[in-house]
Amino acid sequence: MIEIGRAKRATRVYSFDDIAIVPTRRTRSVGDVKMSWTIDALTFDFPIIAAPMDSVMSPATAIAFGKLGGLGILNLEGLWTRYEDPTPLLAELAEISDPVSATRRLQEVYAEPIKGELITERMRQIREAGVPVAGALSPQRAVEFGPIVEKAAVDFFVIRGTTVSAEHVSSVDEPLNLKQFIYSLDVPVIVGGCATYQSALHLMRTGAAGVLVGFGGAATRKTRNVLGVEVPMASAIADVAAARRDYLDESGGRYVHVIADGGLGRSGDIAKAIACGADAAMVSTPLARAEEAPGHGHHWGPEAWHPRLPRGERATFGPVGTLEEIMFGPSHTPDGTMNLVGALRKSMATCGYTEVKEFQRVEVVVRD
Amino acid sequence: MIEIGRAKRATRVYSFDDIAIVPTRRTRSVGDVKMSWTIDALTFDFPIIAAPMDSVMSPATAIAFGKLGGLGILNLEGLWTRYEDPTPLLAELAEISDPVSATRRLQEVYAEPIKGELITERMRQIREAGVPVAGALSPQRAVEFGPIVEKAAVDFFVIRGTTVSAEHVSSVDEPLNLKQFIYSLDVPVIVGGCATYQSALHLMRTGAAGVLVGFGGAATRKTRNVLGVEVPMASAIADVAAARRDYLDESGGRYVHVIADGGLGRSGDIAKAIACGADAAMVSTPLARAEEAPGHGHHWGPEAWHPRLPRGERATFGPVGTLEEIMFGPSHTPDGTMNLVGALRKSMATCGYTEVKEFQRVEVVVRD
Amino acid sequence: MIEIGRAKRATRVYSFDDIAIVPTRRTRSVGDVKMSWTIDALTFDFPIIAAPMDSVMSPATAIAFGKLGGLGILNLEGLWTRYEDPTPLLAELAEISDPVSATRRLQEVYAEPIKGELITERMRQIREAGVPVAGALSPQRAVEFGPIVEKAAVDFFVIRGTTVSAEHVSSVDEPLNLKQFIYSLDVPVIVGGCATYQSALHLMRTGAAGVLVGFGGAATRKTRNVLGVEVPMASAIADVAAARRDYLDESGGRYVHVIADGGLGRSGDIAKAIACGADAAMVSTPLARAEEAPGHGHHWGPEAWHPRLPRGERATFGPVGTLEEIMFGPSHTPDGTMNLVGALRKSMATCGYTEVKEFQRVEVVVRD
Amino acid sequence: MIEIGRAKRATRVYSFDDIAIVPTRRTRSVGDVKMSWTIDALTFDFPIIAAPMDSVMSPATAIAFGKLGGLGILNLEGLWTRYEDPTPLLAELAEISDPVSATRRLQEVYAEPIKGELITERMRQIREAGVPVAGALSPQRAVEFGPIVEKAAVDFFVIRGTTVSAEHVSSVDEPLNLKQFIYSLDVPVIVGGCATYQSALHLMRTGAAGVLVGFGGAATRKTRNVLGVEVPMASAIADVAAARRDYLDESGGRYVHVIADGGLGRSGDIAKAIACGADAAMVSTPLARAEEAPGHGHHWGPEAWHPRLPRGERATFGPVGTLEEIMFGPSHTPDGTMNLVGALRKSMATCGYTEVKEFQRVEVVVRD
Repeated sequence: MIEIGRAKRATRVYSFDDIAIVPTRRTRSVGDVKMSWTIDALTFDFPIIAAPMDSVMSPATAIAFGKLGGLGILNLEGLWTRYEDPTPLLAELAEISDPVSATRRLQEVYAEPIKGELITERMRQIREAGVPVAGALSPQRAVEFGPIVEKAAVDFFVIRGTTVSAEHVSSVDEPLNLKQFIYSLDVPVIVGGCATYQSALHLMRTGAAGVLVGFGGAATRKTRNVLGVEVPMASAIADVAAARRDYLDESGGRYVHVIADGGLGRSGDIAKAIACGADAAMVSTPLARAEEAPGHGHHWGPEAWHPRLPRGERATFGPVGTLEEIMFGPSHTPDGTMNLVGALRKSMATCGYTEVKEFQRVEVVVRD
Repeated sequence: MIEIGRAKRATRVYSFDDIAIVPTRRTRSVGDVKMSWTIDALTFDFPIIAAPMDSVMSPATAIAFGKLGGLGILNLEGLWTRYEDPTPLLAELAEISDPVSATRRLQEVYAEPIKGELITERMRQIREAGVPVAGALSPQRAVEFGPIVEKAAVDFFVIRGTTVSAEHVSSVDEPLNLKQFIYSLDVPVIVGGCATYQSALHLMRTGAAGVLVGFGGAATRKTRNVLGVEVPMASAIADVAAARRDYLDESGGRYVHVIADGGLGRSGDIAKAIACGADAAMVSTPLARAEEAPGHGHHWGPEAWHPRLPRGERATFGPVGTLEEIMFGPSHTPDGTMNLVGALRKSMATCGYTEVKEFQRVEVVVRD
Repeated sequence: MIEIGRAKRATRVYSFDDIAIVPTRRTRSVGDVKMSWTIDALTFDFPIIAAPMDSVMSPATAIAFGKLGGLGILNLEGLWTRYEDPTPLLAELAEISDPVSATRRLQEVYAEPIKGELITERMRQIREAGVPVAGALSPQRAVEFGPIVEKAAVDFFVIRGTTVSAEHVSSVDEPLNLKQFIYSLDVPVIVGGCATYQSALHLMRTGAAGVLVGFGGAATRKTRNVLGVEVPMASAIADVAAARRDYLDESGGRYVHVIADGGLGRSGDIAKAIACGADAAMVSTPLARAEEAPGHGHHWGPEAWHPRLPRGERATFGPVGTLEEIMFGPSHTPDGTMNLVGALRKSMATCGYTEVKEFQRVEVVVRD
Repeated sequence: MIEIGRAKRATRVYSFDDIAIVPTRRTRSVGDVKMSWTIDALTFDFPIIAAPMDSVMSPATAIAFGKLGGLGILNLEGLWTRYEDPTPLLAELAEISDPVSATRRLQEVYAEPIKGELITERMRQIREAGVPVAGALSPQRAVEFGPIVEKAAVDFFVIRGTTVSAEHVSSVDEPLNLKQFIYSLDVPVIVGGCATYQSALHLMRTGAAGVLVGFGGAATRKTRNVLGVEVPMASAIADVAAARRDYLDESGGRYVHVIADGGLGRSGDIAKAIACGADAAMVSTPLARAEEAPGHGHHWGPEAWHPRLPRGERATFGPVGTLEEIMFGPSHTPDGTMNLVGALRKSMATCGYTEVKEFQRVEVVVRD
């Protein structure tokens, strides 16, 4: 514990940039590294999830990501469930270069109401492509649209917001009782973000199959400016991993997956997330650089279009390659934005590991 | 304690940028968050005070700020008490772009003597608008102009300077005996800045209703360059909050308000100030960005026009919106400069708090 | 030990930039400083090795470096063993200014197979110039080309790769048994990189004459982005120096040389490497600035041309002087890129040391 | 003690930028602050010395600085003792804008031999102006030119070099026996730089009246690049202040002045130097900005013209005011480069101190 001043104490926390992975005395062949990830009834080829953000996941890219062997999640409060055909809007947004103008236009565009029938349609479209289906709602809209999502026979129901707590207290609206809600659903639920041992433990007790650690959105989030709230990811994951271990004991064996969601802009960050205890990583920024990305090289999350208090900003990148190249290479740049799967495989092999679960134990150091 | 070298020890201190607020396992509805702040006989809609700086508070903007529900303080040693009509001067200053030239012109403009009758006039003007009236003097001029201020029937008398101590020792001038002076006044006094437990405790013992922590001025101060003196705000507030607690006990129940004054450039900083123990925050930089701001997008404090040793610099910002938008939104930028009240409300709700006083206990972390 | 979070601990580590050397109470004349370095049967005029990178060492510059009194190592998997005459290719590469295009072209150029007869020819060429001969292979190609290198009567056989471990486990390929391999060779072996006490100790037990600490490549490596792996050099060297000491005891007197390989861009870094316990330093970036450098002012390592996952980038510098000026001066710039030998000599004299081995004990401090 | 790695430990050290001065609960009037400084037989108006560097001190500026009440020291190995009239050379140097060309030309210009008769002449010139006379030699030339300096009836003899030790061991040249040399002189000696408790203690035992802490040269030094040697000033001063205290005891009452020499680019740094235990500060960078400065806005130290291994670089500033304005104001900029004496006075008054010696006890904090 650190003393900030006589009346306040704090713990010291660490971000991915503060830490580094250290090789052990053993190395492995990359060919021996197993990357598959099983959660609930489904097994994926790699432990990387595509985040439910309009700049990254459209029905088409969710299908493409699924065909590559991963889980792509569609944002069910995004443009695809507000508009019959949002492609002209996405093209128009791509033309706006000034970030403040972009924020204003996003605020307008997202004022359009969500349509239940579009949720049904988008999920159907993905399911018919033969890949796993997953859609995300915020806790605020989960009760309203949850039944529609469930009826759409999704493989995963994702409840994702800024700081989702198991215990939302409210006198002004009817709060979502997460435990009851998840119990009532017939599909596995992934829920978050959370950032501490206690909040994760409570989320695990709701019956979720996975919890999201962090608040998503990588480069485009500015919550620290606006709210003063910030979650250095390395510490958050290491805390939530402890909650997983303790809940496993408390529940007599229920293993809740810890999914890093935020700060994962480079392949090295994905390796560090697992090194800190994550089972999988939900990425967005690297995928926003795909040629197929619906954001046309721009990237934004839900916090960017809050009508009165935006807490994120649209970011702009040039495309670096196809979705397949970003996931599997070949890479032509050493900045950690291409060949995410190959990089994780190489990181594990270099450090002497062949199993993702084992790699959670690799040694890390803190840079002074 | 840290050893700087064999003959010197020091404590480690923290600024707002070093810390972050951490959500708890509970969340709240923003509609349930109570923001009102009561000090002495007055209650305000939010715990944010507008700083007595000429670039921020004119009689007009003090009235506007009061009508929005806050407390705006007029600098009684500023242009409005030196000139009958300073608006041409403010317009002229806005035309100077070079900072060194701006310093020189400020030094000239502020050489004009303060007129007692203008103090009376400015206070009357604000009072007649039906909003709370507050004016600020430096300790150096408090004895001279204090009676005029008191006679003007202000709601608060603010004594604000660089490092105000309860015990000013001098053989060359008649020092202000703060305790006697405050005792002699019929209005509640807010006094500061201070930065340590001891100096705050002594200021509390003078009978002040509130103490200012920090030295004001945010972006425009350069005291660390000139004097080597610097007050990382998070630690200063946490120390002074401890003085408040100990003085509450010592005095048998007198609660002296701790008001953060400095380093509050973004709404997240205001949340952090309260998280460290502040009751309210005195802001200037965000208000200097209002379209109505008298500085026309420029911002400076009294330390910028010291005739021989300026310790601040005029800063220049573009306006981001109206005073009302800056306080209540809607915001169109995620940099923490708009919707200050909404951001504080959201920060508290996100972390599970509905009372400002309770929010002083929220968990904070130190970033490595 | 630092707690990253409840489920993860870490040690704090230091890079060259984090530390500084401190003079003692004694000073020495630079003329008294002895710089010679003996490893196995050979003695060099200074403890600085030229790294086996195509941008730095060609047969011609290896010979020139040897004539200056040092050990220059040729990369036996580089352009000089893939092409009869790579000089047109080196010239062509120098014309490409965009780093991503450079990466793509490097990937193509290095796809050409290595020819055993060129290995023989290049080693012969250097040997005939009458200077010590050393060639480097990666562990992946060591078995294939090792016999050719041995037959070429080299003075040192360098096995250099990203994280070379004594224990490479593989089910997909026949792993190199380093201990057996080194035992079977008739020449002294220098092997690395490694970064920890344990991995270094195991490398020492293979019978190597020297181990490389770090992963080479200085300014051009981006492994931290891609793999999350990073080795702050000061800590790595200090750990491996402890392995040398413990292995010296364990082996009953075999002194394995610790050679810093990475992060050595300035002469001050070389001094710091020795201060942390290195016996010698393998440099590349300063030599890439020589007028004679085969990279024509560009600099890249093997990690820059990996076909699917490049982890380094070609860097570009202007030349600062001749190879001789870079090693012995006169220097015309205070950035630590010229007169490397003179700078190390001066650093030692200033701190009161005349022997490199003694200088490993000089006091260092950590900058806050 | 910090563990860099298993085989190396270090202490953590602090620079001026790492620390800040904290006001106490008392304030003082600036008019009560006493700034005079007495060393040996002389008393100066303020504890600030002008460093013996050609860009700062010519005979004319040394006289001007003395008339302002301070001690200006002439570099006796500079242009004024190498050339009858160096003003054309200074003008020519001022025309060279490229730093590398400047280094080359400095190396040539300083190759001209020092003339003993010019030493005599320059000292005479200053003495006749009726101000205190002081000249500086490096330890390398002290024996050769010392007698001439002594005969010139200087008030202070300064021996200043990079790392001056009391115990210089050499087999190649006849080392200066500092103790004997100082004992043989009839004038008080100021000697340095040094940076540690032990080296300072040994320098104090030579009989010096003052020791210089640090290696001088502020902005223009690059020793950390070239030699890896660096002296964070706050820690160095605090260590040497402990040596002063212990030597005072050991010697039965001889008070050796601790003079900070390096890193003093802003008035705040001067205050911090005293706060760490210095009795006086030797400054150069702020004086290089005087309109009268012989460097015409450029600034360099002896380390910039080393013939084979320059360890500093010529820096370039625009002039900010007259020498008098820089020392006493009025200042027109808050960057700490003007009104050095007024700033120190204000810093002390703000923190409640009236005596420089007492100010050595002011509280400092370390910024995270």
